[in-house]
Formats: sequence, structure tokens, C-alpha cells
Amino acid sequence: MIAIGIDIGGMSIKGAAVDSNGRVYDKFSMPFVKGEPGEHTIEKLAELVKEYIASQHLEGKIAGIGIGCPGTLDVTNGIVEYSNNLDWNDLPVAKIMNEVLPYPIRLINDANAAALGEAKFGAGKQNETVIMLTLGTGVGGGIIINGKLYEGNQGKGGELGHIVVQVDGEQCSCGRKGCLEAYASATALIREAKKAMRLNKRSLLWKLSPDIELVGGKVVFEAVSKGDKAAKEVLNNYIKYLGEGILNYCNIFRPNVVVLSGGIANAGEALFDPLNKYIKERFYGYQRTPEVKVVPAELGYDSGKIGAAALFFK
Amino acid sequence: MIAIGIDIGGMSIKGAAVDSNGRVYDKFSMPFVKGEPGEHTIEKLAELVKEYIASQHLEGKIAGIGIGCPGTLDVTNGIVEYSNNLDWNDLPVAKIMNEVLPYPIRLINDANAAALGEAKFGAGKQNETVIMLTLGTGVGGGIIINGKLYEGNQGKGGELGHIVVQVDGEQCSCGRKGCLEAYASATALIREAKKAMRLNKRSLLWKLSPDIELVGGKVVFEAVSKGDKAAKEVLNNYIKYLGEGILNYCNIFRPNVVVLSGGIANAGEALFDPLNKYIKERFYGYQRTPEVKVVPAELGYDSGKIGAAALFFK
Repeated sequence: MIAIGIDIGGMSIKGAAVDSNGRVYDKFSMPFVKGEPGEHTIEKLAELVKEYIASQHLEGKIAGIGIGCPGTLDVTNGIVEYSNNLDWNDLPVAKIMNEVLPYPIRLINDANAAALGEAKFGAGKQNETVIMLTLGTGVGGGIIINGKLYEGNQGKGGELGHIVVQVDGEQCSCGRKGCLEAYASATALIREAKKAMRLNKRSLLWKLSPDIELVGGKVVFEAVSKGDKAAKEVLNNYIKYLGEGILNYCNIFRPNVVVLSGGIANAGEALFDPLNKYIKERFYGYQRTPEVKVVPAELGYDSGKIGAAALFFK
Repeated sequence: MIAIGIDIGGMSIKGAAVDSNGRVYDKFSMPFVKGEPGEHTIEKLAELVKEYIASQHLEGKIAGIGIGCPGTLDVTNGIVEYSNNLDWNDLPVAKIMNEVLPYPIRLINDANAAALGEAKFGAGKQNETVIMLTLGTGVGGGIIINGKLYEGNQGKGGELGHIVVQVDGEQCSCGRKGCLEAYASATALIREAKKAMRLNKRSLLWKLSPDIELVGGKVVFEAVSKGDKAAKEVLNNYIKYLGEGILNYCNIFRPNVVVLSGGIANAGEALFDPLNKYIKERFYGYQRTPEVKVVPAELGYDSGKIGAAALFFK
């Protein structure tokens, strides 16, 4: 079985045919032109996909086209209701695509697409229940139960970055205070690194990033590896909040595995060793409870395409 | 279809036959004798159920026997691994029951049983996704997705009271700090009422409960209804934490309904009106997100029996 998986982002739109073993065919892409009417963008995309299917000789073999997209979606009717990143409002994506492409079209939240891809063909494969958290500008996520994406009523669930872990805590972009996103995103790690730099003029962080405005997550891990105390405190605190958020999901879902993606998840054992230690010590039920491993994502930038296509695989 | 639903508690064991419309037949019960070996208790229970089935002329009509039980369970093998309330360890309940009763036996966590009962036949009926929280000594809960109980790996999920909403907050019985249980249980409400009484010697709470050690949740609601400022503050704070916890579950599951049970949930509109207002104002996605109603449970003490029996209904 073959499906097309598409990943719409604020910079570019990428896609590929994917088979039911998770194999990714040749890829296609087009730039995302900011300010262009959404209808126009989707019309161009539809033409591109049509040409791609012809060039790959896949006419008649496509089970459907899955489209991962940031924002608030009406997945039942294939409408992007609101996307801040894309500046789209009530855009009937499925309808426009169907004018050129006679295949079932399904929309999926971009974080959910990545989660489904990793759960079925990446770091979560062969596990029943998988929770994925994407640690980027924000914190996204996806819930996969028995190999199927759980989206909630009208597809509006799975907002895993938006659980409050600190009542009255840091302001979150969603309007509430103290969400996991406000502590476990790359943005939050950088905010705390800057705070630490301002308080510790001798921290190695200043040597590694003389311009405080350019400090990134990588610099924190580098400073920690070189023994910097201020950076170590920032990282420990980050791991504590991320760990508490993951423990929450463990106690709710008792998944088989938690997959982390996004830039921060590239830090390797400097992140995963202390994080897994933190979590293991605090499980509800202790030794009577099955352990949940926290692991890095494996599919990289392909996870969204693969997951969007996987909407059409059993 | 008919099944037997049993609810094991630290004071008594109660049960009844339940049909697939949720109708409860005549009930049976026996005292729970503290200190008695668990094997002995279950042997007595098995005899009682056998007699009950005979007296109701239900031999051959029973689809199975569901047993709701507090503690850590091995639901696959029908073993109570550990129950603090019952003082049971590794008790093979299903095996002992099966020596006398030739029916399928299934164990279910008591909070899950109540949730399943309410979801199928009570306050959550005809809804796809239902979250139930029981606000008692602790905070228990249950997740029902598409009419089915979600239990997680080895049945060890659904610990809805054990999500941290305040990192480094109040000590929780589970070992972590700041769990929802430590803020939204009846125990937490009473703890905060006592704090308020110590700080406000003129509070009406003292008139309503001259012995501070006897203060209960009801007194707080009574004092609020009579305009007491200290009690109002306690209740507002309680609603804030409970509201944040429920909002977390809304953003994760986007359920159709959240059902509250336990003593606190009997407070009526004094609880539900401000709670629903708090939640409505803070949904992720605001008006684009389907509203989640928070409602009181409807089945009272029968919910556990009905839910345990409902394990055998589609």
C-alpha cells in the first residue's frame, strides 16, 4: 500500500510517497510563500502532487494523501481552521486538493503526524502505546494507542505541551500559566540560560556565546560537558520539569515508550541519561509498575511525511 | 446479557447482578474483616456469590464476574498485587473464585470501575470519551475512550490523581510533590480549611466546626454560602487547582464530558458553576475547541458494581 505524506511548514512544503513498510520514495518540495493566499498555495501544491504521482508512475496506486499542518484543524472536513504560522483561516484544503486529485485527503496536526510516523516506523515501532513530545519552539505531541492516533473530540486533543505543571508559573503562549511548554520547550531552556548568564558573569556560557541574544540549547549542553556550574543548574532544572511532565504522561497512559523529538532531543545521553534516571526514581507504583523508556526520535525530518501517509495504513 | 459486579472496600464487600442496560438486580454484601487472610475472605465471597446466583436463578446466564478493588492489580492474571487498604499482597483472586464459580473473572481498579459505570450508564452515557475524577481521600480516576476503559500497559495507567500540577508543591502520598491529589482531594480541601481557620480566628468556619479537627468539606461550602471570606478563599483556591487539573485532561483528551464523583462532587452548583466558568475561560483553542462539560456523577454507590459488571458488556 502506498500513500502520499505531506508536511506543510512556514518555510516550505515537503512530501513523498510512502509505502506501508515506512519506506520513503523520492521527495518533492516547494517553498511556502508568506503572504500568498492559502487557496493559491494549495492549488500549486495539488498540481505539484499530481505531477509527482505521474512522474513516479503511481496513478491508481495511491490509497490517499495525508497532510500534516500546524494550527487548529477540522480533520473531519479537511479544513485548516486557523494557523498562526501559515496565516491561514478556514482554508478548505481537502476540497481544493480534490479538484485536481481524485484521492481521499486527510489533514493531521503536524505534531501528531510526526508522532504517528515515529510510533509506527521509528523509535516507537512494535509498541502498543506511544507518547511523543516534540521539544522545539513550543512543545507539541501525539498519543498513539494500539497503533492508532488518538485525537480527541473533533481532533482537538493531544495538546501535550499544554498541561500546567506549575500553577501560576511562567506565562504560556496558550494563555494559561505554567504549561509544560513554558518549561520544556527549547525556548524555555534558552530563557533560563539567559537568566543564568545575567546572574553569573563568569559562566562559561559567556565564552561560548558572547552575544547573549544568540545563546541556544546546544551551548547549554556544551557548557555542562565542560563542567560549568551555572549551565548545569539550568539543565538540571530543565530535566526536572521535563521529567515531571513525562511522569505525568506515564501515570496517565502507562505507555510502552516515550519518544522525544526536536532540536533538544539531539543532545544524546547528556539529556537522556539523567532524564531516564529522574523518571525511573519517581514512577507511580515503583517496582510494580512497568518501566517506561524515554528515547530519541529516529526518523528526523521524514517523520511528519511518514506519519501523514500512515493515516492510510492499518 | 447479565454479569455480576462486585465492589471490594475496606469496610464491606458489595455486589449485584447487572444487565447490559445497566439495571441493577437485588444486592448482596458481606463485611470486610480486617486482619483476616485474603484467601479466606475471597473463599467466603465466592460462596456468597454462588448462593446469590442460585437464589436469583441466574445459573448459566452469567457472562462473567467483575471485581472492583483498590490497589495495584495484575488485571491480566486476576491478582491483587498490593492493596494498602485491604492489606493484601499477591492474592490470586480470580483463581480462588474460579474454584467455586465457573465464570470468567476480571479484576478492575475501583476508580476505573466507577468511571466505566458512569461512562456507560450514568453521567457520561452516550458520550464517546469520558474522563472521571473521584474526589475523596485521594483523587482517583478513569479514562473511557469509545466506550472502553483505557488502562495502559499492564493495566497500570489511569492514575489521574497523580499528575504534578505544582512542581515542588505539597507532598503527595505517591512520593512526588505537587500532584493533583495533593490539591484536589477532600483531604486537601480540609487541610486548607484548617490552615485558613488558624489564620482567621473570626472565620465562620469556627462557628460551624468549633473542633478544628472535625472540619469537613461540607462546612467549607456552608461557610461560603453564608458569605465567609476565609472559606471563600479556600474554595476559590481549590477550584483553581481542580480546574487546572481538569483543563490538563481537556487538552490531552478533549473528552466529551468530565464526570466528578466523591463527597466533594455532592456540593452541587456551589462547586460546578464556578468550576465550569473557570474551565470555559481557559480552554486551549478557545472558541474553536469543543466545550467540555464538567458534571456530577449520577450512579452513587452503585457505579463501582455497574462498572465492574460492564467489563463484560460491549
